[in-house]
Amino acid sequence: MLTETLAHFIADGPEAPEETRQMLRLSLLDWAACGIAGAEEPVARICRDMVVEEKGLGEAALFGAGVKVPARGAALVNGATSHALDYDDTHFAHIGHPSVAVMPAALALAEGAGASGAALQAAALTGIEVSIRVGVWLGRSHYQTGFHQTGTAGAFGAAAAGARLLGFDAAQSAAALGLVATRASGLKSQFGTMGKPYNAGIAAANGVEAVLLVAKGFVPNPEGLECAQGFGPTHAGEAVEGALEGLGETWLFDGISHKFHACCHGLHATLEAIGGMNRPAPEDVASVAITTHPRWMTVCNQPSPETGLGAKFSYRMVTAMALGGVSTAALESYSAATCADPVLRDLRERVTVTADEALTETEARVAITLKDGTVLEAAHDLHAPMSLEDRTARLKAKAGALIGEGRAAQIWALIEEEAGPGVIGGVIAS
Amino acid sequence: MLTETLAHFIADGPEAPEETRQMLRLSLLDWAACGIAGAEEPVARICRDMVVEEKGLGEAALFGAGVKVPARGAALVNGATSHALDYDDTHFAHIGHPSVAVMPAALALAEGAGASGAALQAAALTGIEVSIRVGVWLGRSHYQTGFHQTGTAGAFGAAAAGARLLGFDAAQSAAALGLVATRASGLKSQFGTMGKPYNAGIAAANGVEAVLLVAKGFVPNPEGLECAQGFGPTHAGEAVEGALEGLGETWLFDGISHKFHACCHGLHATLEAIGGMNRPAPEDVASVAITTHPRWMTVCNQPSPETGLGAKFSYRMVTAMALGGVSTAALESYSAATCADPVLRDLRERVTVTADEALTETEARVAITLKDGTVLEAAHDLHAPMSLEDRTARLKAKAGALIGEGRAAQIWALIEEEAGPGVIGGVIAS
Repeated sequence: MLTETLAHFIADGPEAPEETRQMLRLSLLDWAACGIAGAEEPVARICRDMVVEEKGLGEAALFGAGVKVPARGAALVNGATSHALDYDDTHFAHIGHPSVAVMPAALALAEGAGASGAALQAAALTGIEVSIRVGVWLGRSHYQTGFHQTGTAGAFGAAAAGARLLGFDAAQSAAALGLVATRASGLKSQFGTMGKPYNAGIAAANGVEAVLLVAKGFVPNPEGLECAQGFGPTHAGEAVEGALEGLGETWLFDGISHKFHACCHGLHATLEAIGGMNRPAPEDVASVAITTHPRWMTVCNQPSPETGLGAKFSYRMVTAMALGGVSTAALESYSAATCADPVLRDLRERVTVTADEALTETEARVAITLKDGTVLEAAHDLHAPMSLEDRTARLKAKAGALIGEGRAAQIWALIEEEAGPGVIGGVIAS
Repeated sequence: MLTETLAHFIADGPEAPEETRQMLRLSLLDWAACGIAGAEEPVARICRDMVVEEKGLGEAALFGAGVKVPARGAALVNGATSHALDYDDTHFAHIGHPSVAVMPAALALAEGAGASGAALQAAALTGIEVSIRVGVWLGRSHYQTGFHQTGTAGAFGAAAAGARLLGFDAAQSAAALGLVATRASGLKSQFGTMGKPYNAGIAAANGVEAVLLVAKGFVPNPEGLECAQGFGPTHAGEAVEGALEGLGETWLFDGISHKFHACCHGLHATLEAIGGMNRPAPEDVASVAITTHPRWMTVCNQPSPETGLGAKFSYRMVTAMALGGVSTAALESYSAATCADPVLRDLRERVTVTADEALTETEARVAITLKDGTVLEAAHDLHAPMSLEDRTARLKAKAGALIGEGRAAQIWALIEEEAGPGVIGGVIAS
């Protein structure tokens, strides 16, 4: 039933509402910016070199490369590249990064098939929704056991995007999901290594491969996701009831989270709270009290980092940066030079961090005491709603910080006018 | 410790004894014959078409194709192709098909690297031994949960073969194993579909990819196989103690089983028992009583098949074929015409099949009562030792039945003289 329902959604699902489609465009912009900015990361270069050296058909574009490659290879490279900075979107319903698994598959197959820009966007949206739904169905036990939903649920999403794009009927769509079930993989034990972004690449590549094979007549077990000893049962799947509730009517994708700070997600609620305050001058600050959920205390509470990487995991440092007017969205802000800045070092000495179990993992409270005794207070929950207008402005600013404002504006204009995959491929490559 | 020990075995392991190396040559012959014979199976054609259409570098040969492709693609195609007939070798210590996962990886990388024939054979042997050891370490629960060791343990073996071939040191070898841990996959729920041979292909391709990436500097979690939330713990691995006992001194590979009949493995002990008897003339046979382990009764006891596929799962039919002088090794013997042959139909009506829990899964007993009252009895256990001489003669005969005696002899001569991978690639392609 699960696969059958998903297959009909892929083959015959309705068009999403305009607001959802606009959210997809924003995620596409965000994905493109993350990929372009990540193209020189070592994991991106390594994967790209391997695939480029295969000298295949010039079918699909790669981030940061003047050469095109076959769709399977492009999906692998672009997935790893766009997740290299870990700055891409996240869905907390299943805890996965949908765009980095699905967008590369959709774009590569769309380029190969000569699809329209509208078809590309619709396929990506279908695939992302499927990845979230499958991830929800797999459930928290799947994630807690050690599977990286970006790689696992993401592969089903990538296959779904490809199936939609190639116009598969429901039977073919089910076959694509059933086939990718024997190849979907990705472990969280790779976190902290190049294996994490690679998991996004393999999801995308596995989806593309499944779709290409089914298009040629490959006959797998079409219930490979859910059958006895299928993917779910063998991978600690919970088979969560209601995972497909409202499919085609409500879009879980609408709840996507975008990162607006180039640091650990545990710091974002704090930075959002500060961002909502009238920022005092650094010299007026007597003390800053951060309150956060206890789980973050071992994750991102380095008191006095000296490196850019350390800064990305430091409440005190990012608080000092935010109060000192240093962009926490820009990658280059996280540097040894920033850590060495005397004004910022002085500021961070005035910051204390306390854990409070009463907060959720997505909440934080900030209290700034000024030298005149005034106390400024703010709180933030990452789940707080954000208007499409605000989100658009912030994602454009983030993209600008990542790849330059001119380029970000150019890509956004192309996405908004639903430019074709060849054009999108061209701008991410150059 | 597991990965570290395996990594040292890969990087610095001793040469195997000559008898083990001769066994490897026999498995290489058997693998080549199965692949050549399987090249026109639909799953082979589908995978090959996908990879050939990518028009990549002419690096590594494909079964039954005049065109070469990049190593990753060749590994995928040749793995699926050589397992398409399900006639390749099996290791019962973990229940996997080592050659179809490892040989394609070793050959493809050897062609790309211009390695010697001796290096190719040594790498394949190392890889197969690693796949069996990892499979034993994962244990029966891994298999029973639903994982296809050919795909899972096979991927580690394929990576090991590649690591040995490219001269990786122990740290690089560990990295290759650690990286493939996040990509290894394969489910038994694909059995009975094209997904089964595909699992062999993905094992080979995953191994090649891991090795190529590590060669370029990819840094994964090198303990991805065994660490907390690593491949074993997340995939129902038992972490069987003693799985690496004697590694480098004793070779589990020595216990490899080759199929000598092109039918379900549950029928082989019966056919071996009959093969060891003085075969009576069909017209002299009054009745035949087969006794087998109960598990096979639901697997391969079709009483009166009418198709070639049905014959492959029928005690009565294959017994009639063996007594009627029809080769059970030749693929073309399993046909509707064979099922329709009046002499064989008459023979199979005289065959009864009984289950006996006292037998193991690899044992069978046969009692033939002749019309003159004489009773001929025989029993066989597939685990019975076979001399290298006998095995060589039988595998050469099998290869001859599959691909023609001249071609089989040519390939065997090349393997025995340790011809290089380019030459081996040339003969499997044509």
